[in-house]
Amino acid sequence: MDSRQLTAAILAKRSFLCVGLDTDIRKTPACLTGADDPQFEFNKAIIDATAPYTVCYKPNLAFYEENGAAGWASFEKTCRYIRERHPGMFIIADAKRGDIGNTSGMYARAFFDGGLVDAVTLSPYMGKDTVEPFLGYPGRWAVLLALTSNPSAEDFETLRLEDGRMLYEAVLATASGWGTADNTMFVVGATQARMLEQVRRIVPDHFLLVPGVGAQGGSLEEVARYGMNGGCGLLVNSSRGIIYADKSDEFAAVAALKSREIQQEMDGLLDRYLK
Amino acid sequence: MDSRQLTAAILAKRSFLCVGLDTDIRKTPACLTGADDPQFEFNKAIIDATAPYTVCYKPNLAFYEENGAAGWASFEKTCRYIRERHPGMFIIADAKRGDIGNTSGMYARAFFDGGLVDAVTLSPYMGKDTVEPFLGYPGRWAVLLALTSNPSAEDFETLRLEDGRMLYEAVLATASGWGTADNTMFVVGATQARMLEQVRRIVPDHFLLVPGVGAQGGSLEEVARYGMNGGCGLLVNSSRGIIYADKSDEFAAVAALKSREIQQEMDGLLDRYLK
Repeated sequence: MDSRQLTAAILAKRSFLCVGLDTDIRKTPACLTGADDPQFEFNKAIIDATAPYTVCYKPNLAFYEENGAAGWASFEKTCRYIRERHPGMFIIADAKRGDIGNTSGMYARAFFDGGLVDAVTLSPYMGKDTVEPFLGYPGRWAVLLALTSNPSAEDFETLRLEDGRMLYEAVLATASGWGTADNTMFVVGATQARMLEQVRRIVPDHFLLVPGVGAQGGSLEEVARYGMNGGCGLLVNSSRGIIYADKSDEFAAVAALKSREIQQEMDGLLDRYLK
Repeated sequence: MDSRQLTAAILAKRSFLCVGLDTDIRKTPACLTGADDPQFEFNKAIIDATAPYTVCYKPNLAFYEENGAAGWASFEKTCRYIRERHPGMFIIADAKRGDIGNTSGMYARAFFDGGLVDAVTLSPYMGKDTVEPFLGYPGRWAVLLALTSNPSAEDFETLRLEDGRMLYEAVLATASGWGTADNTMFVVGATQARMLEQVRRIVPDHFLLVPGVGAQGGSLEEVARYGMNGGCGLLVNSSRGIIYADKSDEFAAVAALKSREIQQEMDGLLDRYLK
């Protein structure tokens, strides 16, 4: 899926929501505890309930790898289920991988061969060698960490370089030259929404994946105001605020309501801020 | 395993070799192609052949994840095999993970619960939140990328900060304060062996994991000269130079010879440079 197709999906659904499938088996609702693969069953229910209101799903690999090989199977089944039942949905493997050359090529194959996902999150620390192998797959994306929403983002990401830029600004400027706005996105945290203005000066055309709205406290309105571009250019993630909004057997119905609320707010923000 | 125990293992075996299990199923020798799990069978043969000459194994997760759930199972079986047949061996999961808080805790559990591995490689980009969950397991280690051996390490790792340090020096100085020399190591590439002098000024006591000796061209003698400290403080990795030294059915015997050659060089270097 290229950026034009992703924008078309956003405008058709009036939503730039990404639902984070951070599915914790310790939080399995009672009605699913007897299932063969409760993680997958939970995801299926969440996906079917939220699909009308979202354009993207983002399983975080940590929540699957915790269960070893069985968890990896749940991740794969989840991706295939989305492909079969909800074609046209964008899938991001939130893996935050970051290896080099030969090895990075292995990761690219692991995620992109067979069409499992559309995009993979990557750490930029080791430079271009990490990212390049992911850029050779038409319609697939590398999603690079730039400015994250966690407290210790200040440890390194906002360090001031001798040329006056912060490290994350150098990451945006350098890494945006490795690929194009059709195969590279950047993670920019919503807790620092004002910094989206500066981000947009450096990468006006790239899609941004914005975590940290909802449970982590960022404002969706500010993200849209400072971050939206002519093709929307935003995917805003919510995980716990949707999938664990209700912990009873009504979890899927409540997830549908929560994602619909966000979609309705996004509908208005698209009217207001789409350039 | 704490640093005292790791040093004891190194001095007992007169080796600070780490064998990288970057096991590529496309390179399976003919004699194993019919096996149920050729990746695991290859590893077993390599491990039994090289165990007398090494103190550490480092499976790189990319090579296992490429095969999805089946590959993850091969990784787990490999770790358990080392635990059972070669107790006292240090195992590093070369995963280069880097998530935050809650999610990073999931990764820590994935690798450390059940004692699967002793250490996990991590990317420092997102700061302390990434590393902290790994530091709460007695005898387990976080291995942080600092200065890597790939060409594009220059993209960000050696960027000059406004205080005159390079980024990797800030990573060493800051991250060494999060834990101790008993639960934190740093990855420092051997292609830049002279820079080990500067690394040792910042982290005199920490173990360093040094990739890039052998196939990638670094000099073992220089690594020992500039990097060794009073407890050795080095684990030097070789992957392809050992496991793919021979591609015929004699691969394990040749791997034994190659690792023995390195061990013998290390024996001499310990005499010469152990402070």
